[in-house]
Amino acid sequence: MIGGGQLSRMTAQAAVALGQSLRVLAARADESAALVAADVQLGDHDDLAALTRVADGATVVTFDHEHVPTEHLRALEASGVRVAPGPGALIHAQDKLVLRRALAAAGEPQPAWTEASTVHEVTAFADDVGWPVVLKTPRGGYDGKGVFVIRGPDEAADVLERHGTLLVEERVDMVRELSAQVARSPFGQVAVWPVVETVQRDGVCAEVLAPAPDLPDVLATQAQELAVRVADRLGVVGMLAVELFQTTDGVLVNELAMRPHNSGHWTIEGSRTSQFEQHLRAVLDYPLGTTAMTAPVAVMANVLGGAASDEDWTGPGLDERVHHFMAHWPDVKLHWYGKTPRRGRKLGHVTALGQDVTEVRARAVAAARYLADGVVDDAFAFSHDHHPER
Amino acid sequence: MIGGGQLSRMTAQAAVALGQSLRVLAARADESAALVAADVQLGDHDDLAALTRVADGATVVTFDHEHVPTEHLRALEASGVRVAPGPGALIHAQDKLVLRRALAAAGEPQPAWTEASTVHEVTAFADDVGWPVVLKTPRGGYDGKGVFVIRGPDEAADVLERHGTLLVEERVDMVRELSAQVARSPFGQVAVWPVVETVQRDGVCAEVLAPAPDLPDVLATQAQELAVRVADRLGVVGMLAVELFQTTDGVLVNELAMRPHNSGHWTIEGSRTSQFEQHLRAVLDYPLGTTAMTAPVAVMANVLGGAASDEDWTGPGLDERVHHFMAHWPDVKLHWYGKTPRRGRKLGHVTALGQDVTEVRARAVAAARYLADGVVDDAFAFSHDHHPER
Repeated sequence: MIGGGQLSRMTAQAAVALGQSLRVLAARADESAALVAADVQLGDHDDLAALTRVADGATVVTFDHEHVPTEHLRALEASGVRVAPGPGALIHAQDKLVLRRALAAAGEPQPAWTEASTVHEVTAFADDVGWPVVLKTPRGGYDGKGVFVIRGPDEAADVLERHGTLLVEERVDMVRELSAQVARSPFGQVAVWPVVETVQRDGVCAEVLAPAPDLPDVLATQAQELAVRVADRLGVVGMLAVELFQTTDGVLVNELAMRPHNSGHWTIEGSRTSQFEQHLRAVLDYPLGTTAMTAPVAVMANVLGGAASDEDWTGPGLDERVHHFMAHWPDVKLHWYGKTPRRGRKLGHVTALGQDVTEVRARAVAAARYLADGVVDDAFAFSHDHHPER
Repeated sequence: MIGGGQLSRMTAQAAVALGQSLRVLAARADESAALVAADVQLGDHDDLAALTRVADGATVVTFDHEHVPTEHLRALEASGVRVAPGPGALIHAQDKLVLRRALAAAGEPQPAWTEASTVHEVTAFADDVGWPVVLKTPRGGYDGKGVFVIRGPDEAADVLERHGTLLVEERVDMVRELSAQVARSPFGQVAVWPVVETVQRDGVCAEVLAPAPDLPDVLATQAQELAVRVADRLGVVGMLAVELFQTTDGVLVNELAMRPHNSGHWTIEGSRTSQFEQHLRAVLDYPLGTTAMTAPVAVMANVLGGAASDEDWTGPGLDERVHHFMAHWPDVKLHWYGKTPRRGRKLGHVTALGQDVTEVRARAVAAARYLADGVVDDAFAFSHDHHPER
């Protein structure tokens, strides 16, 4: 697996049960996956020599991010290495303009968009759809980076000057964001999970509610079918997350990830087959596991570095917070990534299961917030009975 | 963790989520845990220098077996190393005579027993309880090894000559075998799982049914309270499995294991907190997780090396069997230990969850049998709908 982050870390964990040994290409020895995997090679994902070395003897090469250059993937394939997802599929998760063109050709629902390298092109588009518009760098963006909400020509000029040719999209008047995850094997078997709601804060995924609360069945099925069609059409092998905007009219495709994704961390406890196990099954061409949920509701909350990550923090230290977390929420599951705490960094996540989404969400969010900030939100935490699932 | 077997392997897997890095002392680089752990040291568990080296810088030293000599544990403790469980507790899982004496002093229910080094002592005991009697080597036995059912003085003489002083027990007229698992923290917090039935074949655990079917509540509670009392009295830190004989009168203690145990593998999917996570929480002195079950019934079946492990096997190979297994049982979870297949060897296990113990057991056993032997038992497998839990 190329990349040593938490996705690779949790994939290594899933590989243990399958009797597989995951080799990880990490940039540094202290990356999340490098701390726990048995077979770690250090090197850069854009260094073909490093990629060739890590691929040597591997059944298949897969990824925990989208940043490996297409020409390197083509070179690996040309030398007989199996790459999953293949470069022809992966490009749609790497380049937002390529994705928009492909979805347009397929007639799939997406925001109004155009390609622009001049202010004139942006304003002509905005004349149609109205300001503000959203400018996106076609490549390299994640967690809200490379995305600019632009209110007029001057702002557009500034962003274009810095970034060159951009994707321009209407700002969608959305109800909320959803994610539809599907796994696809080389053989074409697909497995789809319930559609989830993703709650973003400052452009970063903060919570995932599974299944998406109050999502009409017809819309859920529509989103799942869309994800399966996209996976098939693009020839995805492995996990595909289709990030969606829910509008009053239906759903629009925001972007794709072709790997395990933050919106699927809940599956570790919340589904019979986790996205990490499923990704391995798919890229190794094993039959896929059932995606049935293990409880009516699962909520995942990211632990994002907060006040307790600051150097001048004087509250309970991390280990003390983990103690308090475990004492107070014996039924909330922790996943810690082994990273040095820093403001806004994804340090770990927690998952809670239960019957009622309001209660389960309150529990997960309070637990994550306590781990991140060392403070207890009265509205959530200590006024609740936290064993309602029993 | 001292020992590189599957218990260590699955503990390493659980450590990932807790943000812990498990260092493993393995005898060989191809042992189960050595294949997946990031930090592996090679050495023998009875070599104090190796133990000292692996303990260097560790928060705590724990075990995947009971074979570390007491004097070495005392030496580690004397040099300031935290050992959990401590030698004073662990001795009761190492030496069956020490266990019998301790349980007698505590007034806990156990089979009639004595210590014998002569045929005369054995026959005197058998005159009381009747033949056959069971002779056990006090140390080193596992999976039925070191246990001898003796029908008369001649057989006793033979065993005594080979093994010296032995534990002699009545042969218990048992209904079935049970296991009561509990975790205990240094602080004295305990967490107890539902009592399970363990099904042995040829002295080796073959299946575990959770909870033990049709076990009267009063007896289940009695077994759980017994396990908690034993953990407290012996000062166990970490997991304790109390292996029990169920008789028409109640339960009798067979033996103890102070580590994750085969009878608790079902907890990975069947309980909110697995025995592996709980062992880590306990030895690291974190608060314990909830032991609530995730489904009404969980059944674990060991995959013991069978016909398909033979050199002259001409049926489907292991990888092909795993494919068929996954295709046919998408909801049965696999845990593979990475070992070279050999007759009778524990190669992995599978866990099935559901509502009805007969159906769940049939599913788990058929899946394990197919993986082990490459054959399908008509009575179980392909006549069932295998998604009854949905």
